[in-house]
Amino acid sequence: MTTRMRTEIGEQGTALRETLDALLPRVAEVGILGRETRQVLFIARGSSDNAAVYGSYLIQTQAGRLATLASPSIATTYKKKIDLSGVLAVAISQSGKTEEIVETLDWAADCGARTVAVTNGEGSPLAEAAQLALVTRAGDELAVPATKTYTTQLAALAVLGIGLGAEVDIADLRRAPDEVDRLIAATEAADALPEIVEELAGVPGAVVSGRGMAYGTALEFAIKLKEACYLHAMGLSYADLLHGPIAVVDDDTPAIVVAADSGPTLPAAVALAERVTAAGAKAYGIGGGRMLAGASTRALPGPDLPEWVAPLALIVPGQLITERLARRLGIDPDMPRGLGKVTQTDS
Amino acid sequence: MTTRMRTEIGEQGTALRETLDALLPRVAEVGILGRETRQVLFIARGSSDNAAVYGSYLIQTQAGRLATLASPSIATTYKKKIDLSGVLAVAISQSGKTEEIVETLDWAADCGARTVAVTNGEGSPLAEAAQLALVTRAGDELAVPATKTYTTQLAALAVLGIGLGAEVDIADLRRAPDEVDRLIAATEAADALPEIVEELAGVPGAVVSGRGMAYGTALEFAIKLKEACYLHAMGLSYADLLHGPIAVVDDDTPAIVVAADSGPTLPAAVALAERVTAAGAKAYGIGGGRMLAGASTRALPGPDLPEWVAPLALIVPGQLITERLARRLGIDPDMPRGLGKVTQTDS
Repeated sequence: MTTRMRTEIGEQGTALRETLDALLPRVAEVGILGRETRQVLFIARGSSDNAAVYGSYLIQTQAGRLATLASPSIATTYKKKIDLSGVLAVAISQSGKTEEIVETLDWAADCGARTVAVTNGEGSPLAEAAQLALVTRAGDELAVPATKTYTTQLAALAVLGIGLGAEVDIADLRRAPDEVDRLIAATEAADALPEIVEELAGVPGAVVSGRGMAYGTALEFAIKLKEACYLHAMGLSYADLLHGPIAVVDDDTPAIVVAADSGPTLPAAVALAERVTAAGAKAYGIGGGRMLAGASTRALPGPDLPEWVAPLALIVPGQLITERLARRLGIDPDMPRGLGKVTQTDS
Repeated sequence: MTTRMRTEIGEQGTALRETLDALLPRVAEVGILGRETRQVLFIARGSSDNAAVYGSYLIQTQAGRLATLASPSIATTYKKKIDLSGVLAVAISQSGKTEEIVETLDWAADCGARTVAVTNGEGSPLAEAAQLALVTRAGDELAVPATKTYTTQLAALAVLGIGLGAEVDIADLRRAPDEVDRLIAATEAADALPEIVEELAGVPGAVVSGRGMAYGTALEFAIKLKEACYLHAMGLSYADLLHGPIAVVDDDTPAIVVAADSGPTLPAAVALAERVTAAGAKAYGIGGGRMLAGASTRALPGPDLPEWVAPLALIVPGQLITERLARRLGIDPDMPRGLGKVTQTDS
């Protein structure tokens, strides 16, 4: 039986194409709304928060503006006003119905920010609350672990970045949907896929590490392993890993290292994999070209895309590992325990 | 034998008193430097990053300004300029020697920010690089897991917040050192301390959760358990926990919930402990008064301090648990594997 999660992983190429077709024509609107803003403040939780991490690196490295993540509880729990003039607040929510996120975007507007929504929920409260809604075209997502709603959020954030002046080649963004299709087939054809799944089935935890543009991918892969496989998975930047928790990597705790095939973070990814294997632990490389594959115990290919757009496809091997590992562990990946589709934070 | 870590935990009261005596007179200088800044951008890694999380909540809830965390790799790996006019960049580093942090603060100044250093390293490169250095008085810290350098960083950040206009009662800050001394004694006298340590010795992982002002405490306790006890410990806000990884809490994975004895986040802390125990898992409450203790499987007392200043002492039970658990597991808490005292990120 094919799980709903696997079906939705396979729908990502089409979902990305339709999302880009819908949103790329809106680049000028983003530019107008963002014109007098100095910086971006992302408002998100869960997988959407991992998308925001991608957005923050994209905007800071390519569009010359500060971009950081908000603390929603300042708005929802502490109910404190702060000065947000000159800020472009970007709220990201798959459903567009999470009250905490809607409330925080309304708060940002009250504090003087301009507002954007990134959501798959057309006509949702979040889309209605924002000055500009970038509505993704993921279609219905029924499996609890987000896949196509996450990658289409990344596509919307790439459009946001371009609207804010990112100096990138849009043709690379246009290639991302095909790369997702190709990478699904390539991952499922790789011997390393069942080998990694089998080895992960025997460990209590794993560390997933990525840096810069790929940091959000590491966080997203870790959250997938936690929510669908109940694995103690930690998503960490290389820097944070080296500043402490490298101690947890051992015989029983492999490190999964994700990286684009090129870019300034690749040497550190390779060095991390070398350090992990030199210590006698396993390193699984995802992407990072021949360099990372050569430094890793086992490796899966990544997308043939430049670093700035690679995250739209780089999560695909992680999604496929998660779906297989859940089934291998006897868990229904479509409906893991403890999770609903629309999450509300506050009681 | 008393470990160096336990000795340094015990030196925190004195270290905090000396730090406050040295830094409170500098509130006016902070105010002058911060006058034309709209927001704070923290630059930190590891335990210092957890201190920055406290600083960000303190400044946003009490001083009416946006305060968020920087991504150092924008400066050090991507080497991209962004507009930081109107930003007060605050770099935090125990040693003041971590090259990545010094380089990122220099980058912030080049981008137009005003600069502050919070460090225990008098005359260190970081202290020299900043326009204003708030040098903590923790003395020498020899155990690898940071304890007194972390809590004195929090004291320096409280001074920063007051300098930026936080409307708080300084007398409460002045009481924090005595509360640390009292809480060490109270924790060590509690039956729950050896019971929690013994139970944690038998599990592969734990979740540490806190929200708002106590979120940094949860992150810091988790990093301690990871680095000194090799436990798969995840520090999470309640919101992020409920948005996914609650699935990892089960018979083998207790949730540790930290909270101040009062404040707007307390009801959610109590609700989280109730949810965890209702699901058949264990919840250990730290602080949160009678409400949290009543909702938890086991509980340790927290400080008798208002929420904004409670984090200066709220980490103490976590430090004591970590030190005992490491010894129980046969690990030398003063020198766990894989860690050096001054960490350098980039190869």
